[in-house]
Formats: sequence, structure tokens, C-alpha cells
Amino acid sequence: MKVYLDNNATTMIDPNAYELMLPFFKEMYGNPNSLHQWGSTTHPALREALDKLYVGLGANDLDDIVITSCATESINWVLKGVYFDHILNKERNEVIISSVEHPAVTAAAYFLKSLGVKVIELPVNEEGVSTVEDLRKVISDKTALVSVMWANNETGMIFDIKAMAELAHEFGALFHTDATQAVGKIKVNLSDVGVDFASFSAHKFHGPKGIGGLFIKKGLKLTPLLHGGEHMGGRRSGTLNVPYIVAMGEALRIANTMLDFEDSHIRRLRDKLEDKILALPDTTVVGKREHRVPNTILASIKGVEGEAMLWDLNKNGIAASTGSACASEALESNPIMEAIGAEHDLAHTALRLSLSRFNTEEEIDYAAEQIKNATQRLRKISCTYAYNPNNYK
Amino acid sequence: MKVYLDNNATTMIDPNAYELMLPFFKEMYGNPNSLHQWGSTTHPALREALDKLYVGLGANDLDDIVITSCATESINWVLKGVYFDHILNKERNEVIISSVEHPAVTAAAYFLKSLGVKVIELPVNEEGVSTVEDLRKVISDKTALVSVMWANNETGMIFDIKAMAELAHEFGALFHTDATQAVGKIKVNLSDVGVDFASFSAHKFHGPKGIGGLFIKKGLKLTPLLHGGEHMGGRRSGTLNVPYIVAMGEALRIANTMLDFEDSHIRRLRDKLEDKILALPDTTVVGKREHRVPNTILASIKGVEGEAMLWDLNKNGIAASTGSACASEALESNPIMEAIGAEHDLAHTALRLSLSRFNTEEEIDYAAEQIKNATQRLRKISCTYAYNPNNYK
Ligand SMILES: Cc1ncc(COP(=O)(O)O)c(C=O)c1O
Ligand SMILES: Cc1ncc(COP(=O)(O)O)c(C=O)c1O
Repeated sequence: MKVYLDNNATTMIDPNAYELMLPFFKEMYGNPNSLHQWGSTTHPALREALDKLYVGLGANDLDDIVITSCATESINWVLKGVYFDHILNKERNEVIISSVEHPAVTAAAYFLKSLGVKVIELPVNEEGVSTVEDLRKVISDKTALVSVMWANNETGMIFDIKAMAELAHEFGALFHTDATQAVGKIKVNLSDVGVDFASFSAHKFHGPKGIGGLFIKKGLKLTPLLHGGEHMGGRRSGTLNVPYIVAMGEALRIANTMLDFEDSHIRRLRDKLEDKILALPDTTVVGKREHRVPNTILASIKGVEGEAMLWDLNKNGIAASTGSACASEALESNPIMEAIGAEHDLAHTALRLSLSRFNTEEEIDYAAEQIKNATQRLRKISCTYAYNPNNYK
Repeated sequence: MKVYLDNNATTMIDPNAYELMLPFFKEMYGNPNSLHQWGSTTHPALREALDKLYVGLGANDLDDIVITSCATESINWVLKGVYFDHILNKERNEVIISSVEHPAVTAAAYFLKSLGVKVIELPVNEEGVSTVEDLRKVISDKTALVSVMWANNETGMIFDIKAMAELAHEFGALFHTDATQAVGKIKVNLSDVGVDFASFSAHKFHGPKGIGGLFIKKGLKLTPLLHGGEHMGGRRSGTLNVPYIVAMGEALRIANTMLDFEDSHIRRLRDKLEDKILALPDTTVVGKREHRVPNTILASIKGVEGEAMLWDLNKNGIAASTGSACASEALESNPIMEAIGAEHDLAHTALRLSLSRFNTEEEIDYAAEQIKNATQRLRKISCTYAYNPNNYK
């Protein structure tokens, strides 16, 4: 059996989104900006795709949703754009991020630091979230931007974005949320939470890899990251990737129709898998279930090196992760576990399981069984675990 | 009959490149960085695609070819990266570009200007090219970067990149070429021309829209535009767009096998079409044929507004352009014609025809006929032309 449980790294494209995009490769392949039918025939589909994004993200007509190549681009754009618009030669000189942001946020912020910006990182509690109280302790009228993720990629923990955005605005700061792991998993209404900027990436909600977007609240200026021609009102240049835009719109539309299913069926499967892992001795999971998006488990299995577990699971057809996909090849400890202060040992035992609506009950039962088997096998050969007979029954 | 003659704006995807990429949407959809089979099964194809890029562009093993989302991204990356690495807080403070660069180069350079960089624009001759002599007049030991396109998108004129790169290096400056319109049309050997950076975009050589690359010569530092995780050696973050990378590699491989065909068959069709246009009274074409890439014609048809011509051709199934695709919707005069000093009137009569290997002889004959008909029709109603009976026979 093959079971893909690495949906926080990337997802399979939705079959309908896939079908919808194909004609834009070989038939309607014109540049939408062109004055001929190869260009103009793309317009209805592009308009529809953008409509789906506006509706699906709860944006208002006067807000901008600008297509980018990925969340990483959107995030870099916000941090660097705000630097040029509001920090360089201005009064404000601070950027606040949480200490568990995706590397795109952290690395972009550190780049700003190299330019003289003060970067403040919010601590996280034992569940791996920063709270509005954490933010209140450090925010000031020197703060130009607060950037906090909506949902964490490794734990699935949801942050109180609405309260933080409100607080940022009280201090005259802008608020960006990296919504990459929230979109398609929980209801995302950007108008309701009142953020200024929000980043997202299609491949996290069954769209293609290499396309994403940035929500920019009505009227806000943001110096382009990709300067050039007149594409998208001069906000982001580069020839439009029509097939992927079409697919992203449809993928979001479908994901949003499935949110109830996500919250019932996928949550139930997730909880079932989690229960079976927690039934093994010496295992823990980060964060309360009701505080997390419905599809994610970050477990720690004492004495079992995360990579060894992945290896074993992969042999049995199961895809999982030790945490952020970006770090997978580096064989590093899980940075969230480090951040919440887990012992260094434990941080090497992280196992992230992230479900999607394409997972079945049989798959989950099979995965639970395989995780149990792997745990037994690996603990027997673990130098930090197996030698203690009390540890295993 | 439908005839697509707007291949400098964008191209149809090559059918083989298309087929090759499809399995990476629905089957091998893992993140290549992941430690499981959904990720690792993408590796051979990715390696192969990169090999095709290295071979196809004449890069050496130790050079970097970094995948980006388009030429616009690559270009912005070079200009802004060089700013941070070699201009900010350094001795050099000048960037030299030609006055007929694509808006991505021009706009990025103007952005640097707003940061205090001196931007020098090289003049062009009556063929629309800047020469190494033009460069010699302005280059100095204050020059940080010279950025000159390999082939112009509107005229197809080829620039002497090799000589300019050599001169730039004599002055200790870096050299970037926007090779977007050269790749796939003429032989591009980056090692041979000795540039430091080269930008390209797959959709100009029958790859998909929304993927491109930046060649970075061995050992050169370049501050990332997209900061983040460890993707591509930390050079450019963002989850890899596997299907498009695979398609881009294959598209380049095929395009390179077709270069002789491009230089014989396509050139012959282009010349035939050009001859027929020049046989109409009061028509001109910019630049000598042997100085141009084989597929491009930038014609001026006196008294015929470019947009009116496009409209008429489009009604008859023919796709063409008035110049840069980015400007098409703005109904502006052709910037190249302005740059070479054509009368303002003439600059509004630009018609760009750009062929591909998918065009047939019948298509070209049909297009020539339609251009002739449209010219007659439109001159009859032209306020600047038709009233003079001598103008039309
Ligand atoms: C929270 C979060 N932000 C940003 C990203 C970056 O997305 P992309 O790689 O598509 O740019 C990811 C995924 O890797 C993520 O999980
Ligand atoms: C010469 C040149 N440079 C750069 C570009 C930008 O390419 P893209 O839109 O794929 O970023 C184009 C095409 O529009 C071009 O013709």
C-alpha cells in the first residue's frame, strides 16, 4: 500500500484543477497581454481564476491579489518591500517575527538585519505558538512590520492572527501573515482578520508547485520585488503563467468546498492516527488538537531517530517528514522542537504526518500499524533507548 | 487558417516537453527535498533537466544555473543582487544598460537609480543596436555592472555580447546579458561569450510560461532575491516546480537540435515574408537580416496604425504584435522605433512578426496575403496616408 502523509510539504494536484489547466498549454497558449485571440481567449479563465481567489480568501474588490511564483516570493516581497517603503530613511526600524516562522520569513528578516534593521523574534510556548501577549511586550512605535504565520507548517498550530493584526495596527505597524499552511485547511477570511498582507502557495492546497500569491490590502503601496512591465498593474512583472493560475483558482475553490470534510473526516482520521501513536509508550505530540489545523501531527517517538523512521516507513510505502521539507535533506533536528525547548535528544525524534482529503481510512490504519512496527524495530537498535528493558513492552 | 506569428511574446509548448512533464503533476508529485519515494523519484528527471540546461547553454560544471520563475525574476535578481554586493557601501556606483532593454532591465535599473545609483543608457544606431564602441565611451572604474541583451525582442537584432563582456571585465565590471530572445533561436554558448550572468525564460523556446533561469559564472556571489531555505544551494528558495523544470530542460534540448532548421527553414520563411512586406510601397524593416535572429521582423507600414493592423490580422486568424508584449495593452508607440529616432508617426506603425519552427510555408503565404490586404484596406481609411493618391497604387 502507498500512503502519502507529507501534505504539508506538498500535495498532489487536484484532478479537476489539473484537467482545467491543460488546454492552456497547447491550445490557448497566448500571452494574455497580446492583442489577438491566442491572448484574449485566456481572459475569461484568468478572470474566473482571480474571482475564485478573491472569494476563496475573503478579499474585497479593492484589495489586490497579486500572482507570484510561490509563497517564498510573496514573503520576500513583503519584507523587502516594507524595508524600502517604511524603514529605509524613515523613523521605524524594527521588524517582529515569531521564532517558528518558515525559513523564507526568517532568512528574509535576517537579510534586513544585515542592512541595519532590528529583528525581534517572539518566543513560543510549550505548544509552539506566540501569543498576542508576547507581541505586546515588544511592539512599539518603532515597529514597521509584524510578520506571524497563520498556521505552523510542522505542528499545525494556529496563531491568533486577528488579535495580533489589531495590536500591530494600534502601534501603526503593518501586519503580514504567512497563510501558506492555513489556506485550504481552515477557513481563511482575510478581510475578517484584517491583515495588510498575506502570502500563500498553491501546492499546499492541491494546486501546482511554482505558483502562489500575495494579498495586499486596498490602497497599500509595496515596492515591487520583480520590476518590469505593466503586468498586474505594475505590481509584479513577468509573463503570466496562465495554466497554473487557472489551476490555483480551481484548487482553492475545491479546497474551500471541502473545508467541512477537512474538519470532520480528515480530522477524525488524523485523531485516530494520533491516538494510535500516543498509545505507544514514550510518545508525545506537540500542541492540543483543537488548537491545530485538522491534518497535522508532529509526534516525538523517544529513542527513534526521525530519519531512521522515515527510511523505514518509506520502505513500506509511507511518505512522512521530520519537519520542514526544506530541512529534510540536512538531517537536522526539528527546529520547532528546539524552539519549544524540547531536549536536544527529543528534537531528533520528530515525525511529521500531514494528511489530505485523498487519504482513506485503510491508509491510516496501515500507516498506524507500520509506525508501530517501525518503532519496535528501531527502538531495539537504538543506543539511547533499547538497552533499557523497561522502555519497551 | 490560423497563423501564430507572435513567438517573441510567447510560444506554444513543445509536444514532447509537454508529455515529459505530465507525470510529475499527478504521480511523481513529491517535494524533491523529501526523504521518501514521492520526492526521490523526481531526482533522475531533475538531474537530466539540469544536464540539458548546462549542455544547452554551454555552461561549465562549476557554473551555477539556478532555476527561477522567469527572466524577469532573473534580471531583477542580478541588478538588485549586484547592488547589494558591489554598490551599497562600495566604491562603484554605476550601472550601464542599453537603451533598448526589456522593461524588466530598465525598470530594475530605474529602481536602483532611486537608491542613488547612476544609470547610464547606451545609445543605439539606426539598426537598433548598441556597440562595444558605445560602451567604451562611458565605461569606467566606477562601473559595477553592464547589462546588455543578447538579442532584442522587437527587432531580433543581435548584440556583440562577447566584445562587451570583455570590455566590461577590462574595467573590473560584471557583465549580465538578458539572453531571453537568443536562447533557442541562435547558438548560445555562455562559456564562450564569457558573461558573468545570463537570464532566460522557458516560454520563449517552447517551454512553459512561469519558469526560467539565471546562469551565474563559477564562484560568483549574488545576494539572493528569494531568501529562504536550502533550495538550490541557498541561492533561490521556494519549492521546486518539478514539471516545468523537466519541460524546460527538454524544450531547450529540442530547440538546440533545431538550430540548423531555424537558421535555414525558418530564416527562409521569414525572409520570404519580409520580401513580400517590402514589396508593398512605403514599408521598411528595422535592421539588416544577417544581423538578426532568424525568426523576427519589425516592419513599419506607413500610414497604418499598428493596432489597427493587429485587429485586422486577428480577424483573419493571424497573431502578431506591435512590439513588446508588455506594452501591447497600452497602445503605445514602439519604443525601439522611438529609440532609433524614427518619426513619431512611424513609431505607431510598427508590426512585429515572429515565427517559430511550427509555422508552415502555407501559413507564411497566407499571412503575407492578409498583410497586403489589410494594408490596402487600412490605408484607404488612414488620415495620414490615404488622402495622397500617389501613396497607393
Ligand atoms: C509556512 C510556510 N511558508 C512558506 C512556505 C514556502 O512555500 P513555497 O516553497 O511554495 O514558496 C512553506 C512551504 O514550504 C510553508 O510551509
Ligand atoms: C528580451 C526579454 N527579456 C525579458 C523578458 C521577460 O520574460 P518573462 O516575462 O518570462 O519574465 C522578455 C519577454 O517578455 C524578453 O523578450
